[in-house]
Amino acid sequence: MEYIRARQRGIVVGSLPPGQLNRISDVPGVKVGHCTLADGDLQTGLTVILPPPRNPFLEKLPAACYVQNGFGKTLGLVQIEELGTLETPIALCGTLNVGRVHDAMVGYMIDLCAGDGVTLTSINPVVGECNDGFLSDIRRRPCGEEELLKAITDARDDFALGSVGAGRGTSCHSLKGGIGSASRTLELDGERYTVGVLVQTNHGRLADLRLPDGTRPEETFVRENGGDAPDKGSCIMVLATDAPLSDRQLKRVIRRMPVGLIRLGSYIGHGSGEICIGFSTANRISASDPRDILPVQQLNEKKIDRFFRAAAEAAEEAVLDSMLCAEPVTGWQGHYKRSLSEIYR
Amino acid sequence: MEYIRARQRGIVVGSLPPGQLNRISDVPGVKVGHCTLADGDLQTGLTVILPPPRNPFLEKLPAACYVQNGFGKTLGLVQIEELGTLETPIALCGTLNVGRVHDAMVGYMIDLCAGDGVTLTSINPVVGECNDGFLSDIRRRPCGEEELLKAITDARDDFALGSVGAGRGTSCHSLKGGIGSASRTLELDGERYTVGVLVQTNHGRLADLRLPDGTRPEETFVRENGGDAPDKGSCIMVLATDAPLSDRQLKRVIRRMPVGLIRLGSYIGHGSGEICIGFSTANRISASDPRDILPVQQLNEKKIDRFFRAAAEAAEEAVLDSMLCAEPVTGWQGHYKRSLSEIYR
Amino acid sequence: MEYIRARQRGIVVGSLPPGQLNRISDVPGVKVGHCTLADGDLQTGLTVILPPPRNPFLEKLPAACYVQNGFGKTLGLVQIEELGTLETPIALCGTLNVGRVHDAMVGYMIDLCAGDGVTLTSINPVVGECNDGFLSDIRRRPCGEEELLKAITDARDDFALGSVGAGRGTSCHSLKGGIGSASRTLELDGERYTVGVLVQTNHGRLADLRLPDGTRPEETFVRENGGDAPDKGSCIMVLATDAPLSDRQLKRVIRRMPVGLIRLGSYIGHGSGEICIGFSTANRISASDPRDILPVQQLNEKKIDRFFRAAAEAAEEAVLDSMLCAEPVTGWQGHYKRSLSEIYR
Amino acid sequence: MEYIRARQRGIVVGSLPPGQLNRISDVPGVKVGHCTLADGDLQTGLTVILPPPRNPFLEKLPAACYVQNGFGKTLGLVQIEELGTLETPIALCGTLNVGRVHDAMVGYMIDLCAGDGVTLTSINPVVGECNDGFLSDIRRRPCGEEELLKAITDARDDFALGSVGAGRGTSCHSLKGGIGSASRTLELDGERYTVGVLVQTNHGRLADLRLPDGTRPEETFVRENGGDAPDKGSCIMVLATDAPLSDRQLKRVIRRMPVGLIRLGSYIGHGSGEICIGFSTANRISASDPRDILPVQQLNEKKIDRFFRAAAEAAEEAVLDSMLCAEPVTGWQGHYKRSLSEIYR
Repeated sequence: MEYIRARQRGIVVGSLPPGQLNRISDVPGVKVGHCTLADGDLQTGLTVILPPPRNPFLEKLPAACYVQNGFGKTLGLVQIEELGTLETPIALCGTLNVGRVHDAMVGYMIDLCAGDGVTLTSINPVVGECNDGFLSDIRRRPCGEEELLKAITDARDDFALGSVGAGRGTSCHSLKGGIGSASRTLELDGERYTVGVLVQTNHGRLADLRLPDGTRPEETFVRENGGDAPDKGSCIMVLATDAPLSDRQLKRVIRRMPVGLIRLGSYIGHGSGEICIGFSTANRISASDPRDILPVQQLNEKKIDRFFRAAAEAAEEAVLDSMLCAEPVTGWQGHYKRSLSEIYR
Repeated sequence: MEYIRARQRGIVVGSLPPGQLNRISDVPGVKVGHCTLADGDLQTGLTVILPPPRNPFLEKLPAACYVQNGFGKTLGLVQIEELGTLETPIALCGTLNVGRVHDAMVGYMIDLCAGDGVTLTSINPVVGECNDGFLSDIRRRPCGEEELLKAITDARDDFALGSVGAGRGTSCHSLKGGIGSASRTLELDGERYTVGVLVQTNHGRLADLRLPDGTRPEETFVRENGGDAPDKGSCIMVLATDAPLSDRQLKRVIRRMPVGLIRLGSYIGHGSGEICIGFSTANRISASDPRDILPVQQLNEKKIDRFFRAAAEAAEEAVLDSMLCAEPVTGWQGHYKRSLSEIYR
Repeated sequence: MEYIRARQRGIVVGSLPPGQLNRISDVPGVKVGHCTLADGDLQTGLTVILPPPRNPFLEKLPAACYVQNGFGKTLGLVQIEELGTLETPIALCGTLNVGRVHDAMVGYMIDLCAGDGVTLTSINPVVGECNDGFLSDIRRRPCGEEELLKAITDARDDFALGSVGAGRGTSCHSLKGGIGSASRTLELDGERYTVGVLVQTNHGRLADLRLPDGTRPEETFVRENGGDAPDKGSCIMVLATDAPLSDRQLKRVIRRMPVGLIRLGSYIGHGSGEICIGFSTANRISASDPRDILPVQQLNEKKIDRFFRAAAEAAEEAVLDSMLCAEPVTGWQGHYKRSLSEIYR
Repeated sequence: MEYIRARQRGIVVGSLPPGQLNRISDVPGVKVGHCTLADGDLQTGLTVILPPPRNPFLEKLPAACYVQNGFGKTLGLVQIEELGTLETPIALCGTLNVGRVHDAMVGYMIDLCAGDGVTLTSINPVVGECNDGFLSDIRRRPCGEEELLKAITDARDDFALGSVGAGRGTSCHSLKGGIGSASRTLELDGERYTVGVLVQTNHGRLADLRLPDGTRPEETFVRENGGDAPDKGSCIMVLATDAPLSDRQLKRVIRRMPVGLIRLGSYIGHGSGEICIGFSTANRISASDPRDILPVQQLNEKKIDRFFRAAAEAAEEAVLDSMLCAEPVTGWQGHYKRSLSEIYR
């Protein structure tokens, strides 16, 4: 599908410059893959964010998570919170499918480690989710090992946005939601660093939507599209950066991603499980490092505001793009979601 | 000073109806008092929010706190988090003055309890703060017992807004900040309930400010008023309601107050200590109740979205009013802050 | 297998009286079932704790969780923390098997709800785990739908303890661990209430073990049984009560379960994921209650100390019984774990 | 007063070797000072822990806090949690006196910074407390600027233990509590590092006390000394180390200090505000460092168990010494507390 991103439409969110692809994959080494299931009653899929180490279990990344609203089923946050590290790719899918994808990720990591001569006995998969039960027959949980491998194999820099992968069946502000992404660059000590965001959007009410230029959907349009429905759904927000943020600093930064959602009109509804996850590709921790004390780098906290701004801007643009790039979808029981691109030109 | 509130100017924030005074004091029994110090280099003060029980130590209130950004010095949150109750009035003042006000509150509560025949041996004062060091000689910490008693004696329903009390010396989006307040009403089981918010505003950048109608300050104006200064300061947000929310529910509700700040342009800057405190006047817990098990009421969680909305709307309007009602102030070393009311008519 | 519990051996832990079975099932309506897999290299299984409502999705229970040490993979805690409710049975299994059991629980709840005329679109299974990879070929993840149903069908009051279900392959203080349980009763307003605990034990070092009477394993025995191995593993602790504790009160109570582990010698090692989960069978929340405000009961906080004591005592006795009731097991690659009952008579 | 510490009495807690003084001051640069007020109805005081940088505001230290039981009034934790740094000495005093000591610390830091040519506009004092209202007329709040300066001036390596400073009026397990301290040393990459602990003890029930050798007070003694009184009070635990722990690692380590309390019989009672604070003297962060990215060192997480053990052991020994070194005190209204040293020889 051909889609036109917000920036191509002349909508500029915030003031910081985006990276080359304006995607999370502008962070060197980060790739994203989709497996899209679009067949009648099944309109769902799986999206994976691959951090740069080929095997993140052997080379862990500083990471953080933040639960903005915990009415959700994301798996794997307990260990991130305790140890401040990520040791698998991050997978996204539909709500009822998380267990099966978790198990598939366990299998994938067992094999990956076996290939590296390591016998895996413990692993912490991170699996986020949105409820795509309006457009897809959610009880079928179609994503398993095969779909995970497809998504991983599909991983690339220039990945698709919109009604693809884990965003195939999602809704956002009562229109079609999906996968969005954006990035921002900034300078530290004369070098360029990138903050990238990927979102799976399934939140918000149509009546609340306001675009960056201040426009809001007309009342008739809101009425016709069920815009007074409650805010149920979820939004999963993933942030990556190549800047050396500690896990605590990462947590502070990812807490600013919901700023982007709120700017577009969300007030973080009860039914919307808003979860933030972030990782840094700097300061990787080798599982086999024999030293007791490790040298690392850390952002001077006084300079953290630019990261807050980058996170907020990139998240806002990512949510917007998830909607503008999403083709309309007809799915389960003939349910249908229009695209923001149809009404915003 | 005569001031014109946002609603009088025709700016309507959100969709829920406000209470009669459009203040936190619309919650029955809640009163607010100020002690304003406005004398040359001292432009500071103290504001108290008095919950309805005359002696909240003897009749505790369900309460919650939420730290949106903990670069701040608010006192008393540890116990609220553990026990879910409030047992003193809430006081607000300048950053370096919190210890002295804490001590003054201890003295006040000792006397209050003595009058009730109770010998106080432990008490948890709650004292919030903003850094008013731009307009006031902050190192002098002028607020103590006398000022606290003045503020408590001054407590009323129809309290002043703007550059008064703990808002006398604060700045917001590089203009004059201050004390703001607003309320929203909603219905539960056929009865009317109120959500009231009071804010002490000292946060945000001028370049980021956007008003509810979408207007933003012009670039020249931003330049002339130091609008690129970093977001340092704080915003203390207090919410009261007469609806029977449990402490967990209160916590969920007050977490939506920052939505109001963000809608006006904040991205929750590093230097801005954003703290939320909330209490319910329902389900008061008598310190002398001999029963082991107490009957209480609790909101059906499925109905909580209207409270989220009320908290977000009231906070946004309260922040806006804190600026629109704030007269310009000249203070320490001749520092000066203009008022939003001067440019927004 | 015949086993002799601590209390039958004359070891009395603490001062509060246990319930009739001295198990978590002394809380009316709570039942526990096992599916044990004991076949050569597979020494693992699944244990379920069934709360009283036949369908907890339609009648949710106040609940809380507490992460004492988050180096673990327990699933489902995010939503408990946010909403303070439990809506499925709690399942326990081996570390790498949690995803598959999560998915099986989704299937079970879909069917259960379908039988009640409800189309399930979202559910939050709670699945705890210990790493039983020393005695069992952990990478095979044998527990799925069939095993879950077997465990649920097996649920009863007088369930087995020791090397059964999810405790089949676990180790504790370098000896055989397993499933333990205990209960305590206490009085509120003249009525009897019960606190019950169930543990899956897989933590601790042998050199650190000290029994309630102060005895410690002899040095030779420690050396011969690898007692200097690091504290890796986990301990999952589940608490149930029929007393009307709010979710916040439940959280405070379950935080005292690790006291029991510590009294037996644990210092909560890095590698030991210690997770506490608790629920109350009072104040059930009907999913279809149309009222906006619900009447509930709540413990007078001043009386909570007896619950702290009950939680600590029951957890200590449950851990002890998990070891004393555990038969020795030979498993994966011929690995072998002795039983405490062999050395403590 | 002459006192005999646990180790001198032949009681060895744990297995790790203590530092030279077996005090928190074994961490290079850390000093402790007391101001003791012992005059009739006033049996109270102030204790300060001085971290090595002469001015910690200009050279901040990685820090963490952990609230084991938040029924307490410790001030300053919000900012530590957010920024992971300590910027003042830590002060301890009586419950109602914390506000006044907070204000005194503000004054002290203003002067200290002025001497360094820095105009202070914001500071986060950390003030812990125990309720010494049984032995001292707690409503008088006698500790202010003068007492703080006395304590700071008194700071030394070989500071007194027992009924001194902030421990003058405290009780522990219904006997005399006070200030205790201990340390442990361990090796990383061939170099020696120290973990030091200081406690202000005011917690526990006499009936629950069990000493490291397993002995418990006799029933008659318990009865005669009011040993069935509820666990009210508090225990403040401060940990220092010269090892390069990140703030997250520090938090994990200080969470093991309560293990020491529990081993001596506490079950963390409702009324006992148990607060843990920790800091590292490595990786100091200069307030004037112009670099955006800073090089730091960090413990290899796999080696953290030895720190857990050190924290638990040192805390247990510190609590024990706080009691063994405490002389009996007669105070307010003739109230009297015996010393453990009188019954344990």
